[in-house]
Amino acid sequence: MLRLYYAPHTCALATHLALEHAGAEYETVRVDFATTGQRAPEYLAVNPKGRVPALVTDRGVLTETPALLVWVAQSFPRSRLAPLDDPFRFAEMQAFNSYLCSTVHVAHAHRMRGQRWTDDPAAIAALQRKVPQSVGDAFALIERELLRGPWVMGEQLGCCDYYLFTLAQWLEADGVDLARLPRVLEHRARVAALPLVRKVIAEETA
Amino acid sequence: MLRLYYAPHTCALATHLALEHAGAEYETVRVDFATTGQRAPEYLAVNPKGRVPALVTDRGVLTETPALLVWVAQSFPRSRLAPLDDPFRFAEMQAFNSYLCSTVHVAHAHRMRGQRWTDDPAAIAALQRKVPQSVGDAFALIERELLRGPWVMGEQLGCCDYYLFTLAQWLEADGVDLARLPRVLEHRARVAALPLVRKVIAEETA
Repeated sequence: MLRLYYAPHTCALATHLALEHAGAEYETVRVDFATTGQRAPEYLAVNPKGRVPALVTDRGVLTETPALLVWVAQSFPRSRLAPLDDPFRFAEMQAFNSYLCSTVHVAHAHRMRGQRWTDDPAAIAALQRKVPQSVGDAFALIERELLRGPWVMGEQLGCCDYYLFTLAQWLEADGVDLARLPRVLEHRARVAALPLVRKVIAEETA
Repeated sequence: MLRLYYAPHTCALATHLALEHAGAEYETVRVDFATTGQRAPEYLAVNPKGRVPALVTDRGVLTETPALLVWVAQSFPRSRLAPLDDPFRFAEMQAFNSYLCSTVHVAHAHRMRGQRWTDDPAAIAALQRKVPQSVGDAFALIERELLRGPWVMGEQLGCCDYYLFTLAQWLEADGVDLARLPRVLEHRARVAALPLVRKVIAEETA
């Protein structure tokens, strides 16, 4: 059976939601970030990167949210989580996910994970001060250019929606001016109302 | 015809190499970073993100290296740039590319693009100081865990090789201790020796 390693309030939620949407049989293992369980030898044996998510499959371990979302979509094609039959649409979907992982999530990470890029406490504090702007600017581009509506890619709910929803959980804590993002917030509320989303979040935060 | 917007010494090289490998018909447009051409209104009309690469296709503009590499692989399947028929292998390939864009390239960007995350000159200098370590650690994980050899994914040259090669161009400028990375350097030299790579780099830097 599939086994998803996750921690609450992380981007692992996106893969968790995709697995649930697809009707996959899976179990979950919570990694305790409070005790830096992601750096424990047992977890590093699963994922040497020391991050979540990691998904154990019958062929090996997979990591990285954009890769996992497409793997779920391809493994459960009836889920319609990605436009698998159209390379151009597929690339648009992938570009959206790539922007989330390499720009949006990275901007956010400068609030809590500044030590990845500097050991200087003053610099870490400086990084934290710009998070409202850098995360806000990245979401503003989504608001203006990328989110088609009602779902990210248009009429079909897909993996991009679960991924965007996951990162949009952090807007308030990142201090972003929400008034800039009415369409993102409307999207977030619509995803939040899906029964499977309520179920998964309740499980993760129980 | 396809049109690739690029700048020399950027990650756009990966897509350029993939297009050449695939035998695609394409033209290139150089964006002048020295005059911040990536922020010019004409370019923002092509790619509102103000970054390269951007690829103009007959159906619209595509961005983000991991998305572009897969689009080239799917559009030119005889190129064998990606394992298109095996979702697990495809996910491993995607996870590699995602690690490059969201961890390796991001660590590198703290040397020249610190202003994305702080406006404080002292903090920007602090970010620069850790680049040798953060980029070095990310490449060390590739060296130890991800690069199978002779090519990234094993026996088949693919898009991961062109992407890794592209980011490995920056190791010296990033101040990374090359002695940690014998397998990465051997891979880089082997990719550099491919005739199409020599041709494309000569064109980009002419």
